[in-house]
Amino acid sequence: MAEEFQKWVLMVTAQTPTNIAVIKYWGKRDENLILAINDSISLTLDPTHLCTTTTVAVSPAFNQDRMWLNGKEISLSGGRYQNCLREIRARASDVEDKNRGIKIAKKDWENLHVHIASYNNFPTAAGLASSAAGFACLVYSLAKLMNVQEDNGKLSAIARQGSGSACRSLYGGFVKWVMGKEENGSDSIAVPLVDEKHWDELVIIISVVCSRQKETSSTSGMRETVETSALIEHRAKEVVPKRIIQMEEAIQKRDFATFTRLTCADSNQFHAVCLDTSPPIFYMNDTSHRIISCVEKWNRSEATPQVAYTFDAGPNAVLIARNRTSAALLLQRLLFYFPPNSETDLNSYVIGDKSILKDVGIQDIKDVEALPPPPEIKDPAQKYKGEISYFICTRPGRGPVLITDESQSLLHAETGLPK
Amino acid sequence: MAEEFQKWVLMVTAQTPTNIAVIKYWGKRDENLILAINDSISLTLDPTHLCTTTTVAVSPAFNQDRMWLNGKEISLSGGRYQNCLREIRARASDVEDKNRGIKIAKKDWENLHVHIASYNNFPTAAGLASSAAGFACLVYSLAKLMNVQEDNGKLSAIARQGSGSACRSLYGGFVKWVMGKEENGSDSIAVPLVDEKHWDELVIIISVVCSRQKETSSTSGMRETVETSALIEHRAKEVVPKRIIQMEEAIQKRDFATFTRLTCADSNQFHAVCLDTSPPIFYMNDTSHRIISCVEKWNRSEATPQVAYTFDAGPNAVLIARNRTSAALLLQRLLFYFPPNSETDLNSYVIGDKSILKDVGIQDIKDVEALPPPPEIKDPAQKYKGEISYFICTRPGRGPVLITDESQSLLHAETGLPK
Repeated sequence: MAEEFQKWVLMVTAQTPTNIAVIKYWGKRDENLILAINDSISLTLDPTHLCTTTTVAVSPAFNQDRMWLNGKEISLSGGRYQNCLREIRARASDVEDKNRGIKIAKKDWENLHVHIASYNNFPTAAGLASSAAGFACLVYSLAKLMNVQEDNGKLSAIARQGSGSACRSLYGGFVKWVMGKEENGSDSIAVPLVDEKHWDELVIIISVVCSRQKETSSTSGMRETVETSALIEHRAKEVVPKRIIQMEEAIQKRDFATFTRLTCADSNQFHAVCLDTSPPIFYMNDTSHRIISCVEKWNRSEATPQVAYTFDAGPNAVLIARNRTSAALLLQRLLFYFPPNSETDLNSYVIGDKSILKDVGIQDIKDVEALPPPPEIKDPAQKYKGEISYFICTRPGRGPVLITDESQSLLHAETGLPK
Repeated sequence: MAEEFQKWVLMVTAQTPTNIAVIKYWGKRDENLILAINDSISLTLDPTHLCTTTTVAVSPAFNQDRMWLNGKEISLSGGRYQNCLREIRARASDVEDKNRGIKIAKKDWENLHVHIASYNNFPTAAGLASSAAGFACLVYSLAKLMNVQEDNGKLSAIARQGSGSACRSLYGGFVKWVMGKEENGSDSIAVPLVDEKHWDELVIIISVVCSRQKETSSTSGMRETVETSALIEHRAKEVVPKRIIQMEEAIQKRDFATFTRLTCADSNQFHAVCLDTSPPIFYMNDTSHRIISCVEKWNRSEATPQVAYTFDAGPNAVLIARNRTSAALLLQRLLFYFPPNSETDLNSYVIGDKSILKDVGIQDIKDVEALPPPPEIKDPAQKYKGEISYFICTRPGRGPVLITDESQSLLHAETGLPK
């Protein structure tokens, strides 16, 4: 490349959603390629409330690959980042920006460095699986920058090598991660089942639980489960395959009762195999147990289930309500049992789609304090003030998108450094 | 019987230990006969610290069967009591007290009524499986009163019909409950493996955990697990049989490392299948989890395990230390993490064999407060004051015994009513 071109910076910004598994991924058959021991199914969440935004930039002026996460530079030396960068670079094509007179040939990508800036619109400390949205967004934005001519399914197999569950964030709606059979992982990809409009009456309320406990990382946790649990193989080979078939059918039919039964059972079984690990892994705490009890009691008091619950590798509950009416009744129950600490503002206690609060007729803390106990409770109900950090109300969401509004990019157009 | 004999009361008093399962019983193949879906192995605990004492009396003056538990009359109409009473009566023999001129013929027992008074030397609210010692003692004392000519193995099959785990309280030391094959349960009996002297260096510390939670009864809990868990059959058929063989060998060889591995894994797996039940059953709480973490961390920091943990259908930890030295180090750790509330007297906080406290050099609360953090802890250690009600220090114990000292009987010699 000629000297006069040394100053340009070419950038792409993308936004990618998080997802929550309703049939869980736990256990790898290949640690390096991240190949799962069973299929899993997830629901993509609305990126308006939970997403990662990533800007990737390339410039002949960059002398190394660099990355900033939420404004702080992090190392890219880890195998997972390196795998994603290598796989994307290997698929890069010619890129030309005629207006700016920029031309990058396929073979040039090997010698060009990238800058990556990534930002989550939700607290990373909340334990909301930010790595899924993060690696999906990294792979998706790099693929667009480098003009990779592959569909999202192929890209999902690359994102998978960053974080297993990331592959499911390449699509909106309900998504299946097919474990695949190939040793190289080429058929271990995400497949869209239905888009986010197929079952759009669902409402999701995430309860972010206060926790003092230091959690086992899911990477080491699932390795220990595979190595030591006497139940995990039976789960992966005998139980999950049947559930996957039933879950796909429930999703197609929007059969909420079956969906709830399978979602709750599979979350509980995932935590059961964690407990069956040596040493045992506990992700749920007493607050998680109380949320389950609340939902189970309510579901059993109704003719048909109102809410499904699922917990990932942490104490936070992801509650999926059958519709807005159920979500409003759920939020009433949650606020009754788990009122905020007195110094907490209701506006920061229920975030995301706050319109659910209005459905319930709750405007301030006084309305929360005045909530009557749920009718299904016979004994005087106990309250657990301060056990929840906040609630996020959201809905099924779309897959990754490019952000063309340059003002939203996270890197400076001239320097390629974080804004 | 002639009128002049109407006034006599014939009594027997017996004492029976509790037991703690190290390979767990969870799930029945016959609800009425109480037949298990797998073998289990338990350790009998010293009755000095944890036992049931039962006095049974017969008199022609009694006009119905009656029972008092811890001084309060309870109904005998339940099927479990009726099964035990019927089975024992069916095996009654002639009884004669020549000194008092009392003679009861085998056939008379059908028409004679009994009074039963039972007392636990530990708080019933503590969730320490009082029903095991209780039914064992009921059956044992009735068998002695009615001169039943059967060994403890046969009696265990009757006690089993009161409460499954009760059959294991008919012997001291380590005991196996063989699930059996017969439909009528005749071969589903307790078998002594080794007596309490075989491995008498073991020390047991029970941590009675404060809990606000209402627990699922083990009867309904195990029924729901058998009906809904996708893992219980695999556990019962594939996992437990192997563990039973390994555990018997570990006990014979006093191989504490293997004993600990199996005991902890089986406790965790029992709680895992509870969690895999629909709705999920939680017996352990955050305090239980903290105790496990403390033990696991310590065991892993030593060349060989020091303590095994096991939890029944509740949050209490039963900790089995390899010897007195380990028990003293364990108690130091427990008191460090779980100091008593300031108003609690140390003398009522550590009960049972208090000599372990002396080994540690702890005389009062000030000594507890001065305890240094365990060396295996790197981060500043968190303390959990008030989460434990009290600790019971005990050891392996003997099986049932008759108490001949009449002053210890729980019923009046003349009236047959509670003292």
